[in-house]
Amino acid sequence: MTKKTAYNIAVVGATGAVGQKIVQILEAKKFPVNTLKLLSSERSAGKKLLFNNKEIIVEKATAESFAGIDIALFSAGGSVSKALAPKAVEHGAVVIDNTSAYRMDENVPLVVPEVNESDIKAHNGIIANPNCSTIQMVAALKPLQKAFGLSRIIVSTYQAVSGAGNQACKELENQVKQFLDNQDLTAELLPVKGDKKHYPIAFNALPQIDVFQDNGYTFEEMKMINETKKIMHSKELAIAATCVRLPFFTSHAESVYVELERDNVDVKDLWGVLTNAEGIVLEDDPSTQTYPTPLSAANKEEVFVGRVRKDIDNPNGFHLWIVSDNLLKGAAWNTVQIAERLIENDWL
Amino acid sequence: MTKKTAYNIAVVGATGAVGQKIVQILEAKKFPVNTLKLLSSERSAGKKLLFNNKEIIVEKATAESFAGIDIALFSAGGSVSKALAPKAVEHGAVVIDNTSAYRMDENVPLVVPEVNESDIKAHNGIIANPNCSTIQMVAALKPLQKAFGLSRIIVSTYQAVSGAGNQACKELENQVKQFLDNQDLTAELLPVKGDKKHYPIAFNALPQIDVFQDNGYTFEEMKMINETKKIMHSKELAIAATCVRLPFFTSHAESVYVELERDNVDVKDLWGVLTNAEGIVLEDDPSTQTYPTPLSAANKEEVFVGRVRKDIDNPNGFHLWIVSDNLLKGAAWNTVQIAERLIENDWL
Repeated sequence: MTKKTAYNIAVVGATGAVGQKIVQILEAKKFPVNTLKLLSSERSAGKKLLFNNKEIIVEKATAESFAGIDIALFSAGGSVSKALAPKAVEHGAVVIDNTSAYRMDENVPLVVPEVNESDIKAHNGIIANPNCSTIQMVAALKPLQKAFGLSRIIVSTYQAVSGAGNQACKELENQVKQFLDNQDLTAELLPVKGDKKHYPIAFNALPQIDVFQDNGYTFEEMKMINETKKIMHSKELAIAATCVRLPFFTSHAESVYVELERDNVDVKDLWGVLTNAEGIVLEDDPSTQTYPTPLSAANKEEVFVGRVRKDIDNPNGFHLWIVSDNLLKGAAWNTVQIAERLIENDWL
Repeated sequence: MTKKTAYNIAVVGATGAVGQKIVQILEAKKFPVNTLKLLSSERSAGKKLLFNNKEIIVEKATAESFAGIDIALFSAGGSVSKALAPKAVEHGAVVIDNTSAYRMDENVPLVVPEVNESDIKAHNGIIANPNCSTIQMVAALKPLQKAFGLSRIIVSTYQAVSGAGNQACKELENQVKQFLDNQDLTAELLPVKGDKKHYPIAFNALPQIDVFQDNGYTFEEMKMINETKKIMHSKELAIAATCVRLPFFTSHAESVYVELERDNVDVKDLWGVLTNAEGIVLEDDPSTQTYPTPLSAANKEEVFVGRVRKDIDNPNGFHLWIVSDNLLKGAAWNTVQIAERLIENDWL
């Protein structure tokens, strides 16, 4: 069969924070698009988005939307993916799903291309894009695992409100205005849209992302734990996570402690590996106060690493500060990257 | 000698973020004040502060300011403490110093009253108040150490800008206004006033608090490590810290991982100990989204603990989220508490 030179693409959730970024990246990366179908809920249908200087009208997503589609990129929430991704597959599309709906499904590859590209090949029509906070961590840690072995990860996150969508960004902005106007801060969405209580995020820190599980961990924390094991093919890897929402718009940061299996490794060895790792930018020079921050990483597609330090007590322990744009490498760019690798490797 | 019923108190750095809080607390706690002398740099001298509804004019601090003073509370920076605390001691005052100048001095007790009150007794005229991020952590962890033993602490902090003083708060507020006005954010102070580079804190996270040390850790991180060992009388305790400045005004939060020495401990055991611990408030109920936040802890003197979880991989590992007002328990209130205990125990 001759390989196509351009593909019919659908973006589901096109008007959302991630969907909009996907459309921008398809254009910026000159992705081989034949037709682009933008899909959304009924509420957002009729909106117009620009792609290659042409207006595209957003349509309501239905089971029939996927006729003739080669690749469908989903980021409209788990329930939409559960309802419509199988329909897209029935129509012959390959789905790359940016929700948690299929991530832990044994029949669905969970992929960060720099880490486990070859897992894509085994797909059965659906490939899952990992959680944002997971993607940047495994992108930085997989090269270290390969070089030195890895037995333990303890991560505390510093996560941007855009991970909760455009409405959460508006809530932060609105609360900041209320603060400057000496008004009480009104909270209606964060930490979790559907949960019982809401707290202000402006000038605050909320140690809850997604709903609580029976074990006292939040779903976000369990995503980081379970997805990391799956992507890194390391069921026995010990991982703990504490996930915290903070008042910035873009980029997640992570304070990560790791224990390496190999002895006699030092910071320069980690620097060497990270400098040569695909998709990683090392920004680590205390003498010039060089380290990544959420603002410095925003709108960039790489994962930035700094503050690499050897633990003072454990010679196999190291600390790292990992930052990346949660909407790009953490979502839209990783999704498009998977689509690129699908095509490059002829795994459609 | 008959115990005095009221004391001559000096507050050095009275116009600063912490100094102002000290004056408020002396009043609110009905501290037995005979005379209150408010001292500052030449620049702030002449300002007036209210104490018990009376205006007190702030005077320039000199070596002679301490004649007749019983207790001098210093929080005007390390260089002021180094220059003037010995002079105050020569005049017969006991100094409670809220800077890093004497904290690691072997002849100076470093005190969190709930943790090591009895260390006060050995003072030679100077008692040091620990770093804000250290105080709240040891206040929460000492009861756990007593009950279960403690071998390991790994902490990532979420620290308020008020820890860098009133000017840092103004910088954050100014940057927030610039953001709403679509202007570039101007950074002139944070992360560290005297350091080479400055970065915006609004809508950002800065993984640098205080200057970098030769080992790649910041001074703030080394303070947490070294001060914790001194206060807890545990030189062999393994501690690692990553300290991060964040865009909120008040309260530090800490994501803390600990390893306990005793086996077969569970979350309910930690809850039991923390519920009965002096100065600690347990706020931990995932079913009602109950956990402390910087905003909920602001203007309160206790240390709040939530998100207590057993590590999934290490049965002796636990995670906690510790929050406290950095200007109160982290500074002014702990300072006044030490003064109270000095008097109560007749250790002046």
